[in-house]
Amino acid sequence: MTAFAVIGHLARSDGLFSLNDLPGSGGRMDILCRCVNASLFLSHDMRRDIVCYLIFCGGSVAPKTVKFSGNLIRSLSPDERSAGALIKKALEIPVGSEFRDAAPGVAVRKGGLEQLMTEHAFAVLDEKGTDIRSTEIIPDAFLLSDHLNFTDDEELMVKEYPRFSVGPVCIHADHAITIVNNELDRRRSGWK
Amino acid sequence: MTAFAVIGHLARSDGLFSLNDLPGSGGRMDILCRCVNASLFLSHDMRRDIVCYLIFCGGSVAPKTVKFSGNLIRSLSPDERSAGALIKKALEIPVGSEFRDAAPGVAVRKGGLEQLMTEHAFAVLDEKGTDIRSTEIIPDAFLLSDHLNFTDDEELMVKEYPRFSVGPVCIHADHAITIVNNELDRRRSGWK
Repeated sequence: MTAFAVIGHLARSDGLFSLNDLPGSGGRMDILCRCVNASLFLSHDMRRDIVCYLIFCGGSVAPKTVKFSGNLIRSLSPDERSAGALIKKALEIPVGSEFRDAAPGVAVRKGGLEQLMTEHAFAVLDEKGTDIRSTEIIPDAFLLSDHLNFTDDEELMVKEYPRFSVGPVCIHADHAITIVNNELDRRRSGWK
Repeated sequence: MTAFAVIGHLARSDGLFSLNDLPGSGGRMDILCRCVNASLFLSHDMRRDIVCYLIFCGGSVAPKTVKFSGNLIRSLSPDERSAGALIKKALEIPVGSEFRDAAPGVAVRKGGLEQLMTEHAFAVLDEKGTDIRSTEIIPDAFLLSDHLNFTDDEELMVKEYPRFSVGPVCIHADHAITIVNNELDRRRSGWK
C-alpha cells in the first residue's frame, strides 16, 4: 500500500465551488483532481493498492482531509470534473475528526496535515531530494504540495522527513505522482 | 524538439461539444486535454521544446489535427477545461489542408495520421515495446492512442514503427507522456 497526500493551500474545504470553475472557485481544486487521477488510474483499471489524501486548507471550515481508497472506489472517472464532483459531495456532508464515508472509497474528516502525520511515515517529494531511482526502498507515503510551496509552518513540521526527487526539473504534483507510480510498477515487475 | 501525437478515435472534430461534458459530448475529449497538459506543463513554466498533436477522428468532418506548440502557446492553463476551450475554438474555424492559427501556439488543419506520418519519424508508445530507459537515443516523435486501441487500419499504417514502453503496466496516454518527458529531462541533466 502506498499513500500520496497533497496539500491544497487554497482549496475550498466547504464544497462551495463550481464544477465549471475548479481552478478559480475551487482554489486550484483542479490540481487536487488531477492528483486523484494520477494516484489511482491504470488503463481500464484502478490502482487498488493506492490511497490518495487531499488536504483542504482554504475557507472557514479548514482544514479537512478527503481520502480516496483505490481498493474501494467506484463511480470515479478519469476526468477532473468526476473527481471534483466526488470531492464536492464529500466536503458538503457534516464531519467530525473521524473519517466518514461520503461515497464508496471516498471518506472525509476534519483535520489536516498534523493529524495525517501521526498516521503515515511520510517522505516529501521535492526536486532537491534524493533521486527516487537511486533509493533501495521506496517510502510507503509521499507528501506533496499544490502549486504553492509548503508554508513556513508546514516546512517546520516536515523538516525531519526524508526528501525524494523524481527528476531534475520542477513539475506538477500529479506528474510527480505518475512518475512514482511508474517506479513502483517497474520494481514490482523486476524492470530496472 | 519532441513531438507527441495522440489519436482521439471518437473525439469530435467539429467543436460541437460542451466544456461541461468533455468525456461524453466530446468523445473522450478529456483524454486529449490531459495529453496537452502532460506534454507542455512544467511547474510555473511551459515545455518550449514540445509539440503536441491531437488527431480528431470523430464526427462528419473528421479527421482534423490540432497542434499545440510549447514555444508559442499563451492563454493555456493546466486544467482540462482550459485545453478544451482552445481545442473547441480551433475546431470551430474553417480549415484546409494547411495549419491555420486559431490562437497563439494553437493551429488546426484537415487531415489526420496519414498526413502527420509524412512529417515525423514516429515511434509508437506501447506497453509491449522496448523499455524507454534502455534505449540509447530517445525518438523525436511518439504516437499514442486514446482509451481505444489502434484500429486495424492504423496498425497497418504504423506496423514498421519502432515501439517503446514506459513501464510494465498499461497506463493512460497522458501518464505515458509524463514519463517520457521525465526520461528526457533526466538525460538532458545527466541523471541516470
